[in-house]
Amino acid sequence: QSNVTVYGRVDLSIAQQVDAVKNLEVRNGSGSRLGFRGTEDLGSGLNAVFHIEHRFNAQDGSVANTSRFWEGKAIVGLQGAFGRVTLGREENPAYTFSQGPADPWGTDTVASNGSIVAGRIGSTRYSNSVNYRYDMGAFSVGAQMAESNGGEKRPFSLGAAYKDKTLVLGLGYENPTDKDDNWTTVNGEYNFGMFKAGAFFGTGKNTSAQKHQAWMLSGKAMIGGGEARLSYGQLKNTTTNVVADKQLSLGYHYALSKRTTVYADLTTEKRDAIPSDRQKTGYDVGIKHNF
Amino acid sequence: QSNVTVYGRVDLSIAQQVDAVKNLEVRNGSGSRLGFRGTEDLGSGLNAVFHIEHRFNAQDGSVANTSRFWEGKAIVGLQGAFGRVTLGREENPAYTFSQGPADPWGTDTVASNGSIVAGRIGSTRYSNSVNYRYDMGAFSVGAQMAESNGGEKRPFSLGAAYKDKTLVLGLGYENPTDKDDNWTTVNGEYNFGMFKAGAFFGTGKNTSAQKHQAWMLSGKAMIGGGEARLSYGQLKNTTTNVVADKQLSLGYHYALSKRTTVYADLTTEKRDAIPSDRQKTGYDVGIKHNF
Amino acid sequence: QSNVTVYGRVDLSIAQQVDAVKNLEVRNGSGSRLGFRGTEDLGSGLNAVFHIEHRFNAQDGSVANTSRFWEGKAIVGLQGAFGRVTLGREENPAYTFSQGPADPWGTDTVASNGSIVAGRIGSTRYSNSVNYRYDMGAFSVGAQMAESNGGEKRPFSLGAAYKDKTLVLGLGYENPTDKDDNWTTVNGEYNFGMFKAGAFFGTGKNTSAQKHQAWMLSGKAMIGGGEARLSYGQLKNTTTNVVADKQLSLGYHYALSKRTTVYADLTTEKRDAIPSDRQKTGYDVGIKHNF
Repeated sequence: QSNVTVYGRVDLSIAQQVDAVKNLEVRNGSGSRLGFRGTEDLGSGLNAVFHIEHRFNAQDGSVANTSRFWEGKAIVGLQGAFGRVTLGREENPAYTFSQGPADPWGTDTVASNGSIVAGRIGSTRYSNSVNYRYDMGAFSVGAQMAESNGGEKRPFSLGAAYKDKTLVLGLGYENPTDKDDNWTTVNGEYNFGMFKAGAFFGTGKNTSAQKHQAWMLSGKAMIGGGEARLSYGQLKNTTTNVVADKQLSLGYHYALSKRTTVYADLTTEKRDAIPSDRQKTGYDVGIKHNF
Repeated sequence: QSNVTVYGRVDLSIAQQVDAVKNLEVRNGSGSRLGFRGTEDLGSGLNAVFHIEHRFNAQDGSVANTSRFWEGKAIVGLQGAFGRVTLGREENPAYTFSQGPADPWGTDTVASNGSIVAGRIGSTRYSNSVNYRYDMGAFSVGAQMAESNGGEKRPFSLGAAYKDKTLVLGLGYENPTDKDDNWTTVNGEYNFGMFKAGAFFGTGKNTSAQKHQAWMLSGKAMIGGGEARLSYGQLKNTTTNVVADKQLSLGYHYALSKRTTVYADLTTEKRDAIPSDRQKTGYDVGIKHNF
Repeated sequence: QSNVTVYGRVDLSIAQQVDAVKNLEVRNGSGSRLGFRGTEDLGSGLNAVFHIEHRFNAQDGSVANTSRFWEGKAIVGLQGAFGRVTLGREENPAYTFSQGPADPWGTDTVASNGSIVAGRIGSTRYSNSVNYRYDMGAFSVGAQMAESNGGEKRPFSLGAAYKDKTLVLGLGYENPTDKDDNWTTVNGEYNFGMFKAGAFFGTGKNTSAQKHQAWMLSGKAMIGGGEARLSYGQLKNTTTNVVADKQLSLGYHYALSKRTTVYADLTTEKRDAIPSDRQKTGYDVGIKHNF
């Protein structure tokens, strides 16, 4: 029993999504999950590591991705002075070090800036991948290569981050499985004490070789014991000159404990692909519990 | 590891079902399950709670409901002096407080009185629900509202129970997702010391607005260290004047420990919908192990 | 929490399969798994046992068998002086005591001799089964009967083994669900100290009543702290006089700890059913971590 840590999250909200036929629904705020992980000390600074993570829709008990029960993660590998090498299904380092941290919501809840930070090009995770990660003090770097799985080439990604109490910086380069697409991002956040201010910029090409550009400004402040969040950004197809997404989000997340948070979010979003009768203001009130 | 309790059940029997092409099969006696649950003390009498429960067919290792891995339960919420509020997939209180307890078998095994206590109208659980429960001494009340999910209206249910050493009483009102259907039940059980005697009555309408009525009498007695169970009841469509189900069940459940029970059941059932060549006497011999 | 043991394995390799369109892929070396098991002391030498085991593809997080989440095992039963009786989905004793142990790779990795030891007739596990096992010192015997599930008859299997430090012997008889097929095997391994030498012979009939015969010779030796493995064998349809499979395998498995092994395997295999352009030399380099 000491070889494995069982952990998870159930995160549910009463929510109105921006692009939804349904009015007001019970839905996952972030990815509800159940995971199993462990580290085995092999001596001489060498460790074996494994980690598997299931994702589910807590509102109805269904599996988040019906073709991958262990949607969140499924890896095994070794770590030591050389870094960490793993095989399996893993988050790509461009997401881990830049796309994800760039969004104050970490691409969770109805206020997620997921389409802006991933530019409608990147994917959060890749299966059948070989992964490398190295941490040294405030610096981290990562690299991933995966199988093409019928795509035009093997996807690969690179990421790097710097993180201390004052400054967070991230860089990501993601090259998905198609011939033309790629997505480069840079993000930073500075802690002014009273509040944190962040900026993000992304540029790349989609599978049709059209140029995408994205930017976002964001802020976080501790108010009344909770964290207030604000972001404004957009994603533009500069080849067709179409604004694909323009989003303003506001949220307040209050931690009842280290493990349990209640939250409320509000977002207005203009997307190119939503029928006008479904374009709504999004909002949610939820509870996120980690175990 | 202390944040989560891992528990479950494997319950298998060699059984002959009442309505079956198969003669003699290995089958789940009750819902074999694997669950994860926990309570976090947030201080000031407030607790965060979560609970997810998977159901499976132990005879072949398949998922009980292919579209909902966490078929049994998937909730997160808060409880305190005000009661307990949860979101997610949950048993409805009409089942929890009345329909389920009314059946000496708790709608388990081949002897299940499930179609009588639910009147072929109710469902045991609803997804996408908001739930409230309040307990005060021997009294409990519960309420649930769920999403319509394409049905004609939002389903909702109410339940209440009284429970002490001598007397158990339950009330349930369930209003499923269709326009016309609803199911009201009342049940009671009195402990005479040597044995317990129970009665159940249910009335409501199906989705075609036809009236259903059900009743059942039951008894339990401790004999030879085990519990003997007996029930007789029927479900009638009083609009069409058809007896939909008439069932006599007998069982003996012997606890080898608090966690492990061996059992044998016998049931004769006349259902309107079974072809006469599949109308069989049901029986099972099984073992139920909780972990 | 003390009622259940959580355990598992993640085993991934970079591999080239013998019969594959893909060149070089990340794949399961053996069945990655997550299991829950326990034993409850009921007193008087009687124990209740349960065991459920999920199998998954760690390379992409998918379920190994989409129709059976608990593909590896799902049983409950009793054990005592009389032996062990279980119900559910279980390995058949012909595999447990003879087919599996006959292969130095235990039918794992690209070097698996699975088609030779099972003769393209046997199945590793059966659902809906009743199982009996009895162990006495170095001797073990097992029997299984399962449901026909639409097949021509109920499958059943018998197995027996003798195991001490010098000698391992196994016998298996498997009679699958079709009318004609059956598979009988005998295997042995002798420990010469410096190395172990093994032999296997199998004979039976397929579903078309054609005779299959298989044999294999194998060796294991501890070299440089790891185990070197070698095997050569073939499977022949003696009715059609076609060699269905002829395989030479070589491997080296090095234990970094009791729980973690790194390995490399090489196999050349001629199968009747592989298009010649997909006939490749197989190899893998992998890491197997048990938790």
